[in-house]
Amino acid sequence: MTDTPYLRVDVARLERNIEATADRARSAGVQLRPHAKTHKCAQIADRQLDAGAVGLTVATIGEAEAFVDHLPPGSADLFIAYPLWVTPAKGARLRALAARTSRLCLGVDSVDAVQCLADELTDTPVTLAVEVDSGQHRTGVLAEQAGVIASTATEFGLDVVGVFTFPGHGYGPDDAPIHAAEDEMEALSIASDKLRQSGIEPVVRSGGSTPTVEFSGSEVLTEIRPGVYPFNDAQQVELGTCDFDDVALVAVATVVHRTGTRVVVDAGSKILGADRPTWVTGFGRLLDAPTARITSLSEHHAVIDFPTASPDIPALGTEVHVVPNHVCTAVNLVDELHAVTPDGTTEQWPVMARGANS
Amino acid sequence: MTDTPYLRVDVARLERNIEATADRARSAGVQLRPHAKTHKCAQIADRQLDAGAVGLTVATIGEAEAFVDHLPPGSADLFIAYPLWVTPAKGARLRALAARTSRLCLGVDSVDAVQCLADELTDTPVTLAVEVDSGQHRTGVLAEQAGVIASTATEFGLDVVGVFTFPGHGYGPDDAPIHAAEDEMEALSIASDKLRQSGIEPVVRSGGSTPTVEFSGSEVLTEIRPGVYPFNDAQQVELGTCDFDDVALVAVATVVHRTGTRVVVDAGSKILGADRPTWVTGFGRLLDAPTARITSLSEHHAVIDFPTASPDIPALGTEVHVVPNHVCTAVNLVDELHAVTPDGTTEQWPVMARGANS
Repeated sequence: MTDTPYLRVDVARLERNIEATADRARSAGVQLRPHAKTHKCAQIADRQLDAGAVGLTVATIGEAEAFVDHLPPGSADLFIAYPLWVTPAKGARLRALAARTSRLCLGVDSVDAVQCLADELTDTPVTLAVEVDSGQHRTGVLAEQAGVIASTATEFGLDVVGVFTFPGHGYGPDDAPIHAAEDEMEALSIASDKLRQSGIEPVVRSGGSTPTVEFSGSEVLTEIRPGVYPFNDAQQVELGTCDFDDVALVAVATVVHRTGTRVVVDAGSKILGADRPTWVTGFGRLLDAPTARITSLSEHHAVIDFPTASPDIPALGTEVHVVPNHVCTAVNLVDELHAVTPDGTTEQWPVMARGANS
Repeated sequence: MTDTPYLRVDVARLERNIEATADRARSAGVQLRPHAKTHKCAQIADRQLDAGAVGLTVATIGEAEAFVDHLPPGSADLFIAYPLWVTPAKGARLRALAARTSRLCLGVDSVDAVQCLADELTDTPVTLAVEVDSGQHRTGVLAEQAGVIASTATEFGLDVVGVFTFPGHGYGPDDAPIHAAEDEMEALSIASDKLRQSGIEPVVRSGGSTPTVEFSGSEVLTEIRPGVYPFNDAQQVELGTCDFDDVALVAVATVVHRTGTRVVVDAGSKILGADRPTWVTGFGRLLDAPTARITSLSEHHAVIDFPTASPDIPALGTEVHVVPNHVCTAVNLVDELHAVTPDGTTEQWPVMARGANS
């Protein structure tokens, strides 16, 4: 018995999810480069690469360093899918990384950032991909501007290999994923044309998120970067991207309080994360009680309301399985995942890149 | 230069905040038992105890273990202000803790939990306090039921020393803190009477949160347990509990993108936390640009909107100081705080109880 709360992984479901997305990418004729920010975990990266992933996506230099330390020397094929602002200190870290990877690609989305990259990384074996805003309005340039960024980088002697986007506005109800996938394809298509007009072949045309990946096709994309799919989470269930049966990670929690149809468990925001988009129905879900809703969350309390006269209301002391809203932020709160393998044994999988924010 | 993003503490402000709350408690004639879940940090606990705190509050057994390891042998005076469900494994940990503390008090809020405590902790030198729901409707019994819990515990041979509540419904706009403080006093007053009617003197009557503490008086309370006050955060600024000048912790972040009046910085939910109550104006604030709002947050991006033609819009590559909405969850995301002391030197303060959820 492990003291609650802790994060438990169902390895059979995890492996099934990894295979299913690998199969989907193969069928669609696109390469799969999973986003490792979700799991930050060697054992899961290994399974993704064994299933055919061409490499990994990461969000930070620190995550890249963790995976390079883990993978066989010189083998890591990494894409830092972020518009890095490269200071001299970060430049030194990137040069060290480049020397230890088979391929290191970096994101860029401004002429000023190109200048920093040129100052730090000329003659370093890195490639660049221009980030395009396909509708999330976070980072990335308008598709029409991609050629300017790419040609400026080329003039500075940097090696531009393509374009990428994150269709994050697909995280929404109804047809949001379909529309975001359409926006993604259009933005990458325009941006690719702009690169070609600047004499740069966009060999890499990278997109995809877990909810949009089924609508993204190989007519534009060469590569997809979903992150959440090995685990899934309550957001994905509510988006309809997966069923509860596909959820491979839960917080195991204990009921510490019950008043009528309300129970409180000992997993709060410090293990579930506090993500709560407006379109979800609560702060997470219960794996085995689909009618329950987590109506409020504190650091060490989740308040769960059940329908009146529900037969599922757990007694004090019961262990329940809470599905986090956003698994990427939940995993980043723990040092280890308790991985239950198909033969019933439990392994401790370190979250080796936990907290690698810079 | 430290690579961004990271959490920076202004030690002069921290010490001023610690002194101010210690003075307030002294003036009010109540004991101060700061909630160490906020900082999880030895250097801050030491300063709170040096300023006159009678002991520390913690939320979990794991946090208690971390502070007992740090403090001089046998000196720790700890209150685990949580309705623990004590399994045999947790019972063993609590017995080990009790042997190493000067005082160990535990929360309880059900007869069933009393039974578990009796099974594990009879003849162990621990005390109990009954948790009362003063209006947050999270854990705790109604004030009228406190006597039943207390007398049941006494019958089992356990040592009940009082009552406690967390007026968490004081986290809200307008007069919410004042009304929550009134509810707190009423609930503790009724619960104390119920204990007395059961022949148990409520020596401990513990309450208080950072926003309500100025409205809580010694006519009922013997002890207050605020947590956030050493640092403060964007929630406290927006509640009016403090000014920006009182904020002692920021995330130092770099501007990685700018489009018009929108900038994006590299501090996201994995360092700021994702707490966003409905009554706050965004996902955090900028310390030096009060008119800016963080309108969306991803794991490694905060999207910040400035008023049109604001002179404060920072250029690409600028370092900015982001005030998290809820500092307790931000601190729990990092291994170390970068503490800048009044003489300008920087110390690395480990967040030693980070992730101690169980």
